[in-house]
Amino acid sequence: MTSGRLEAFSDGVIAVLITIMVLDLRAPEHVDTFGGLREHHFVPMLLVYILSFVYLAIYWNNHHHLLQVVERINGTVLWANMHLLFWLSLVPFTTQWMSAHPRASAPVAAYGIVQLGAGVAYFLLTRALLAVHSGDTRLAHALGRDWKGKLSVVAYAVGVGLAFVEPWLAIGIYIAVAIVWLIPDRRIERVTPGEA
Amino acid sequence: MTSGRLEAFSDGVIAVLITIMVLDLRAPEHVDTFGGLREHHFVPMLLVYILSFVYLAIYWNNHHHLLQVVERINGTVLWANMHLLFWLSLVPFTTQWMSAHPRASAPVAAYGIVQLGAGVAYFLLTRALLAVHSGDTRLAHALGRDWKGKLSVVAYAVGVGLAFVEPWLAIGIYIAVAIVWLIPDRRIERVTPGEA
Amino acid sequence: MTSGRLEAFSDGVIAVLITIMVLDLRAPEHVDTFGGLREHHFVPMLLVYILSFVYLAIYWNNHHHLLQVVERINGTVLWANMHLLFWLSLVPFTTQWMSAHPRASAPVAAYGIVQLGAGVAYFLLTRALLAVHSGDTRLAHALGRDWKGKLSVVAYAVGVGLAFVEPWLAIGIYIAVAIVWLIPDRRIERVTPGEA
Amino acid sequence: MTSGRLEAFSDGVIAVLITIMVLDLRAPEHVDTFGGLREHHFVPMLLVYILSFVYLAIYWNNHHHLLQVVERINGTVLWANMHLLFWLSLVPFTTQWMSAHPRASAPVAAYGIVQLGAGVAYFLLTRALLAVHSGDTRLAHALGRDWKGKLSVVAYAVGVGLAFVEPWLAIGIYIAVAIVWLIPDRRIERVTPGEA
Repeated sequence: MTSGRLEAFSDGVIAVLITIMVLDLRAPEHVDTFGGLREHHFVPMLLVYILSFVYLAIYWNNHHHLLQVVERINGTVLWANMHLLFWLSLVPFTTQWMSAHPRASAPVAAYGIVQLGAGVAYFLLTRALLAVHSGDTRLAHALGRDWKGKLSVVAYAVGVGLAFVEPWLAIGIYIAVAIVWLIPDRRIERVTPGEA
Repeated sequence: MTSGRLEAFSDGVIAVLITIMVLDLRAPEHVDTFGGLREHHFVPMLLVYILSFVYLAIYWNNHHHLLQVVERINGTVLWANMHLLFWLSLVPFTTQWMSAHPRASAPVAAYGIVQLGAGVAYFLLTRALLAVHSGDTRLAHALGRDWKGKLSVVAYAVGVGLAFVEPWLAIGIYIAVAIVWLIPDRRIERVTPGEA
Repeated sequence: MTSGRLEAFSDGVIAVLITIMVLDLRAPEHVDTFGGLREHHFVPMLLVYILSFVYLAIYWNNHHHLLQVVERINGTVLWANMHLLFWLSLVPFTTQWMSAHPRASAPVAAYGIVQLGAGVAYFLLTRALLAVHSGDTRLAHALGRDWKGKLSVVAYAVGVGLAFVEPWLAIGIYIAVAIVWLIPDRRIERVTPGEA
Repeated sequence: MTSGRLEAFSDGVIAVLITIMVLDLRAPEHVDTFGGLREHHFVPMLLVYILSFVYLAIYWNNHHHLLQVVERINGTVLWANMHLLFWLSLVPFTTQWMSAHPRASAPVAAYGIVQLGAGVAYFLLTRALLAVHSGDTRLAHALGRDWKGKLSVVAYAVGVGLAFVEPWLAIGIYIAVAIVWLIPDRRIERVTPGEA
């Protein structure tokens, strides 16, 4: 089993997810000024939209890099990938909820819980892939110690807890994790053939 | 005619279906606590969402395994595939309806009717593929006696009937069928070349 | 320029179109019986949904058959294809409008106008492709005299006119055209290599 | 790293974007005549929809032509592409807002700001690609002096300013830019192998 169709399906799901979030970005019917948008909380909505867009873009980028060094998959990998897509599919919901209530504990915690789920799911996907490539050190070498993945999961868990103390601190942590990931994953890129 | 574009189109449709269902998972505008979500029936909504996500993931997985041993298709296969996609396209509707009324007979029966339609359509798709591969025993061997497919169709029919007696029993059957299918289809994987 | 990415993009657009139409199939919040669905005009909504699903499936099928015998494309083909996708993109709108008012002239005429636009756009796409394959008789032979395409365009025009006299007659014509197209396009299949 | 999956993901995002905009094209529930549609501002809504459809089609076309002469990509290109998709993802929002208020300054300026962002992002994408292909003159030759790209960015900036003076003039500029781009990009097509 090769990974072609798995990538195509994942691309499709992430492409739809990253796009349908925009359906929640709307001006109320009678609003036709920038001031009116601001009064209807457009600025936090747009900022949370950008944060979620960046998160989904990071997952797509990492997924892309990861699958490049994959040579075969099995049923466990298919389900580990579906599990990741499931958590990502909840991002539009938590985006919309946190957008509407960026100072309330529950929506901010929910945002972090979904990121935590996706982070764990991504880690499980890398383990499932390593199990299929047991005799091959290329993927293992490319993944390395995966400190960013592990750190993110810890940070999300801290963020979820902090949301019940001070929601803005939790949001700060979510933003910090996104920034850490924006730095492209040089480990895998390094071992990819045909790279300049 | 090869199956590449058929797979791409099916992937696209299933990717959109599995994703747009999340548009119905929303917090009412003024709700900003977990208690408030629960009062607005968020828990059954989320559970039905997960069930439908798993069902669509199963169909994608099985479709993926099935098409791997397919070497050629024809017009009948194209339409049998469209017929399957038609039934799957109704899943977001029955998901939303059963989410809103998990104790009412009609929505729970409707959920089962759509699954029954999809199950029959999948069976017809395998027959159409077998007809194209008449001289080739690989697909026939891979499909085997297809007891899971036949059992599911019977179970959905029983579920639809039970929905009018006790909706929760019907939902229990739908969940049980999903669990049976979650076990990957070893029959086809077995005969796929290049497998570890 | 080859047609791979043109097909992928068209597949994506048609997959989204065929799927988002289901977002309009909804039970009103308090309805939890089949009788209640029927009172809220669910039956005509479902039937119009099926008709539009079949139409989009036909376009995908014909597009798939057509592109199989295509060997190269150019900028004119890209735009002719976009023009076709534009008309198809209006199908969810006319579907929703005709669903809501199946006995009113304007929505039924609008449905036909969009089909007419798509039919003409498909014809123009075949002409653009023939122009690129001028030295090659395979596509020309495959397309033949294209009586079904021409007949459909005439039938849609008649349907649009009839919508202002008796909407149900127009809908009858739209259904008849769909049935004619459901018969797969043997002309192109015939000349496709690798066919059984 | 090759560009296959980058193209597939971009195709997916643009296909969803170009399609979900139609969800805003709706007849109010009780309207069943063309006159009623017109009273509910359907004509400007449809015209803005067409403008945005053409814009997204142009971006897809140019992206398609651009990636055809690309031989390798890197992490910077992935993010430059995501940045472009981000701006394009806002098109459904500005389309809906300008549709609702085509004579108001803010919505018309917002439409131009998003186009300006997309135009700059496309320019940055071409620079990122040129950096990866430094030893190769084919892409550089294909891009040439890119006067259309630079002119568009200037025109959008002028449009945004004019929106605060006379919105219709700004809309006129947006339409003019679209028309300029509708002429296919012969520069890249010229150097693409396999062209007739």
